[in-house]
Amino acid sequence: MTSRDTEKIDKSRSVALVPVGAFEQHGPAMPMATDQIRAVALCDSVAKRMEGTAFVGPELPVGISIHHTTFPGTMSLAPETFIQVITEYATELHRNGWQRVLVVTGHGGNNSALGVVAQRLLQEAPSLEFAWTPITGLAADRIRAFGTAEVTGHCGEAETAQMLHVAPHLVRDELLQPGTTGLDEMDSLPRLSRRARPSLSVTWDRLSANGVLGDPTRSTKELGADIIETATETICDYVRTWIGIDRGING
Amino acid sequence: MTSRDTEKIDKSRSVALVPVGAFEQHGPAMPMATDQIRAVALCDSVAKRMEGTAFVGPELPVGISIHHTTFPGTMSLAPETFIQVITEYATELHRNGWQRVLVVTGHGGNNSALGVVAQRLLQEAPSLEFAWTPITGLAADRIRAFGTAEVTGHCGEAETAQMLHVAPHLVRDELLQPGTTGLDEMDSLPRLSRRARPSLSVTWDRLSANGVLGDPTRSTKELGADIIETATETICDYVRTWIGIDRGING
Amino acid sequence: MTSRDTEKIDKSRSVALVPVGAFEQHGPAMPMATDQIRAVALCDSVAKRMEGTAFVGPELPVGISIHHTTFPGTMSLAPETFIQVITEYATELHRNGWQRVLVVTGHGGNNSALGVVAQRLLQEAPSLEFAWTPITGLAADRIRAFGTAEVTGHCGEAETAQMLHVAPHLVRDELLQPGTTGLDEMDSLPRLSRRARPSLSVTWDRLSANGVLGDPTRSTKELGADIIETATETICDYVRTWIGIDRGING
Amino acid sequence: MTSRDTEKIDKSRSVALVPVGAFEQHGPAMPMATDQIRAVALCDSVAKRMEGTAFVGPELPVGISIHHTTFPGTMSLAPETFIQVITEYATELHRNGWQRVLVVTGHGGNNSALGVVAQRLLQEAPSLEFAWTPITGLAADRIRAFGTAEVTGHCGEAETAQMLHVAPHLVRDELLQPGTTGLDEMDSLPRLSRRARPSLSVTWDRLSANGVLGDPTRSTKELGADIIETATETICDYVRTWIGIDRGING
Amino acid sequence: MTSRDTEKIDKSRSVALVPVGAFEQHGPAMPMATDQIRAVALCDSVAKRMEGTAFVGPELPVGISIHHTTFPGTMSLAPETFIQVITEYATELHRNGWQRVLVVTGHGGNNSALGVVAQRLLQEAPSLEFAWTPITGLAADRIRAFGTAEVTGHCGEAETAQMLHVAPHLVRDELLQPGTTGLDEMDSLPRLSRRARPSLSVTWDRLSANGVLGDPTRSTKELGADIIETATETICDYVRTWIGIDRGING
Amino acid sequence: MTSRDTEKIDKSRSVALVPVGAFEQHGPAMPMATDQIRAVALCDSVAKRMEGTAFVGPELPVGISIHHTTFPGTMSLAPETFIQVITEYATELHRNGWQRVLVVTGHGGNNSALGVVAQRLLQEAPSLEFAWTPITGLAADRIRAFGTAEVTGHCGEAETAQMLHVAPHLVRDELLQPGTTGLDEMDSLPRLSRRARPSLSVTWDRLSANGVLGDPTRSTKELGADIIETATETICDYVRTWIGIDRGING
Repeated sequence: MTSRDTEKIDKSRSVALVPVGAFEQHGPAMPMATDQIRAVALCDSVAKRMEGTAFVGPELPVGISIHHTTFPGTMSLAPETFIQVITEYATELHRNGWQRVLVVTGHGGNNSALGVVAQRLLQEAPSLEFAWTPITGLAADRIRAFGTAEVTGHCGEAETAQMLHVAPHLVRDELLQPGTTGLDEMDSLPRLSRRARPSLSVTWDRLSANGVLGDPTRSTKELGADIIETATETICDYVRTWIGIDRGING
Repeated sequence: MTSRDTEKIDKSRSVALVPVGAFEQHGPAMPMATDQIRAVALCDSVAKRMEGTAFVGPELPVGISIHHTTFPGTMSLAPETFIQVITEYATELHRNGWQRVLVVTGHGGNNSALGVVAQRLLQEAPSLEFAWTPITGLAADRIRAFGTAEVTGHCGEAETAQMLHVAPHLVRDELLQPGTTGLDEMDSLPRLSRRARPSLSVTWDRLSANGVLGDPTRSTKELGADIIETATETICDYVRTWIGIDRGING
Repeated sequence: MTSRDTEKIDKSRSVALVPVGAFEQHGPAMPMATDQIRAVALCDSVAKRMEGTAFVGPELPVGISIHHTTFPGTMSLAPETFIQVITEYATELHRNGWQRVLVVTGHGGNNSALGVVAQRLLQEAPSLEFAWTPITGLAADRIRAFGTAEVTGHCGEAETAQMLHVAPHLVRDELLQPGTTGLDEMDSLPRLSRRARPSLSVTWDRLSANGVLGDPTRSTKELGADIIETATETICDYVRTWIGIDRGING
Repeated sequence: MTSRDTEKIDKSRSVALVPVGAFEQHGPAMPMATDQIRAVALCDSVAKRMEGTAFVGPELPVGISIHHTTFPGTMSLAPETFIQVITEYATELHRNGWQRVLVVTGHGGNNSALGVVAQRLLQEAPSLEFAWTPITGLAADRIRAFGTAEVTGHCGEAETAQMLHVAPHLVRDELLQPGTTGLDEMDSLPRLSRRARPSLSVTWDRLSANGVLGDPTRSTKELGADIIETATETICDYVRTWIGIDRGING
Repeated sequence: MTSRDTEKIDKSRSVALVPVGAFEQHGPAMPMATDQIRAVALCDSVAKRMEGTAFVGPELPVGISIHHTTFPGTMSLAPETFIQVITEYATELHRNGWQRVLVVTGHGGNNSALGVVAQRLLQEAPSLEFAWTPITGLAADRIRAFGTAEVTGHCGEAETAQMLHVAPHLVRDELLQPGTTGLDEMDSLPRLSRRARPSLSVTWDRLSANGVLGDPTRSTKELGADIIETATETICDYVRTWIGIDRGING
Repeated sequence: MTSRDTEKIDKSRSVALVPVGAFEQHGPAMPMATDQIRAVALCDSVAKRMEGTAFVGPELPVGISIHHTTFPGTMSLAPETFIQVITEYATELHRNGWQRVLVVTGHGGNNSALGVVAQRLLQEAPSLEFAWTPITGLAADRIRAFGTAEVTGHCGEAETAQMLHVAPHLVRDELLQPGTTGLDEMDSLPRLSRRARPSLSVTWDRLSANGVLGDPTRSTKELGADIIETATETICDYVRTWIGIDRGING
């Protein structure tokens, strides 16, 4: 897209999508860029379906992965740096006329920081509407229906399924192996950290020896297709409502 | 508590509690310090029940309330400032020998920032175990059983109930009035912002004219007592497990 | 005080008081919150006497206590963090219409930082009038008349007296004991640091083994009452003049 | 590449490449990601030729483009943010065992910031060897031989040639048009800014109405292939020498 | 002084002097660098008298002058920038082996910031002994004996006297004129700001129309010589004691 | 210069010069302030020739010398601190009405940071015209004609020549000695770092044992005079053009 192309977009009726992920261990079988690959795939899927009203902006391929840094290859930004970069992405898009920015994060470790970005922008760019969303959570019902191990998540059934659908050539099927699948496989402290509240953080090596939560060997391409479709439709429905709104004092 | 008193505490078998809240509008009937008052009350309740193993540290009476600043009297810290202060509270407690810090926040606007603090501390103080929790969420089932308006939350049934229990003299019963109680009372954008995902932030005046979500007039002292009791017992059970754990490489 | 209450205050004829202290060792007999307790007590005393024209805002219970961190229990904010928090307190009060903010600090370690805050605010909030004051210094003549040891100050005659007056239940009379009372009890470097100019900083353990300067056993409730009364009247007289002034270009 | 793959690399004999670019106007015919696309293409070319000794790490798709922000679509990071992100990329790679990091920037606006990163890393990571390079400058002789307009550079003969070689489908040949090609087409101030020394910065709209310096219509696919080949071979020769060096106290 | 010269200094028996001032209005007759000129002159005087044990390090010619920025020519650093620069000066001197650093400030506006620097260094460089001093305050008795106007200070009797002694060629005698000399010449707010406590900051134009406090026309070269001599001897006596001390755990 | 003097300057027809240098090792024979001394001398020379249109502002005597910190006496500012100070110098001069600021740096280690300052100012002070220049580079032809060693630069023929011209009394002729004069005298890594591109940073001790690059013993007072004259005339010609320009939207 050229400079002049961006000028032609009716920004009062469209949304800018920003895919963010992580550069961190994803178990024995999946690439470190897994979260970024899924985020980009979902944004492309939304942009394709909402052609002319949803556009994909620049990526940020490294996220907040401090809890994974005990595994080789993992890179993390400091949380304050991540917050600053996304805030600048959003304010620069707004300076260019965008009134709605939606960040899609393939990595849960970015959620808190994105919540902070949203608070900063309410103050620093009150006329910008900033939203963000994780991916897998958008298809929670579908995943529940599929059935997963007692413990699942990072590199688990759902995440692997998405990769089998959007980038099968990057998944080493022969290396897929179960990680931690039950609470009783964990020491007391990591097990405590799985309670919903209070929220306690531990490094990932205490949750899983191979970095995996759940059983990716049960994962299927079909589940991945369903998750991406559900996530795509959820976001598209959201965007349709969003851009249909007569914009009030905050919009 | 004197300097020497703190020296006598067996910090390998205890937890430091930090109550944080907000200094923001709480509708026509409740004080701006409502969230702080509830957080302190809950911490005191836990410390009393866990005498000798749970201690209350310094408070932070102003939180992140950017979304409430359109209402008179509201004060907010910048998110990065709040993150820095809580990080320093935690590292200072750790320097003094505390191995476990639990922040209790009476204000949901602090949640994202506390998540970021937890990430920073994993890196800056790896031998510290840092946890945080909201209050009302600890008693979700009890509140559901009580029954609330379709839309509820800030200054609503549950929050008012807690104040009627812990600080009845600070609630002006005659000024209690319903706020926004249904989605159809909202404009499109604030209504969109009530969807779970994607997450969109709007300023509070767009959610409610009087700053209230839900119907505090239905609230009861008994509900408040139940919520505080449930929250207290949930935290105490958590702390009992926590301090019973043989501390591993991260603890 | 509710959001609407704050709206009714005639801020062109009133002042907001902010009590700040420290969370640090106060010798064998007094609580770590001593400076905060005295600051709050003085602000309450002023607010009561100036009812309708002086109001107490949020506290900051942790100050700059780097020089006391060799004693157990002491917590300190980084000076830049303390400066940022107080600056935000002041600008948030100003955003809410307050034209005059007075910070009362029970802890001398905050003085330099408050001086820096005042400089920042001259630039960042030129229409705000920001003032700050220590406590004990307001009653210097009275204390001189009482007579103190050659070396006195932290936890000494005057500070203990104030606690005996405002929070006698928090002073362990049986543990009151003299600290360093004469220059010849000090090593050369700490003694040098007691010269007025040049100003040299040393950690507190070099000034006193038990953390006390002066002889708190000589202290009396009556002296405390006189100090608080003198400080209260000095501030009230100041505030009366202040709010009586027709506000010029800087006000 | 998976976490375990990165573990197998002999980092004492290899280099990590980081491609950075810009998200800014590139005239009527080329995409805003032009600099990033060229940087990635060059890094891939080097990594392919140095298989097993050069690896491509994460990208940063937005650079420092403040001087281009008067053109639509341009996004810029604050220089201090760009410096922080690249410093964290480098230190994270170093924490993972990399001893040599080479940043390839397709955008000249990043050069000064990369010079500052190099200075910071000398202090913050003394055992890391950090290098950076622009692209076009590596083939200066070849470009001189080709012959360009008196004024050339951004979107000019050389830059367009590279795009015609690495991403021809993203160049809209029909929209290629000359920009500013001679000093006498400029006003006095931008003309002054073209002197080598002193160095004066002006916004890009003062240098060129269509954002182009030089005549891209004269550009050829062959020139692009030559530039990429020359740049690739220059870097490969550099890397061969680099990894052959017995590492001294700084390496 | 060359690199090797500094190596030969016995830093365990010497002190590094850092002269700091301001770049601000000094009334109709004196240069903006007045505070810096006096600080350098005093440091040179001390270094000469303490040859071999006191050395003058780098200057910082711009200080914190926010309160003077309404007068032409005045430049100010942000307080946090000034604090950072002096902290780096001190830590760099310490890295070079200096154990004692004394900052001499010709400008009172730097005092609070220097107090904060001292606190930071207690934590960041505990083995460094950091001291700072104003100039005029070192000769308070001598100035009192001379007799000044009721209101005096900036550009007044004492400051002008020092310039007449150290840099007479830079004082335009014919332009010397009295500034504000009595409290009754001031409006209420600036008059209030002259009270010792509470401390209130106002911009300088509210204190004096010509920027002067006191009557420089009464000033004499002899007074200046006495002030510099008194200040020199006070500092030299201080330094003699300082470097004579057997260094304890903090030194 | 007094406050009122600065008021009389026609700033629409003049430029403010800021001389910056370094406080770092300059070999066995030259003072650590060498770069600052040369920068001030050049600025004075320009100001004298352009009397009434060029004025010298405040200096910054410490620069970015991280690469020299292995040599005794060297002091360095953190790059971000240097950037902040120069940015504030420039914005403060601009606030005082200056429309053109030219920083003259005697130290190459400041170049990247000055490039970053220029980018920041394009955004933070768009109506300010900010330029910067090194010294020696302005007389490259003259130096080439003189002839230098294969390797030259820091403390070499040209730098020493300037000192022999502007401050001969500060050069210890008897201590002048050649440093590294040829690439074959270097280890592989420092030799690699001498290639123009990619750019690799190493600490100075790896480039030269005595801190010198080139042969200062061949240096002459005449060469120094020529360099300063050439640099002066180049800058004066630049400034004449600059202030003659009718100021456009950026000026």
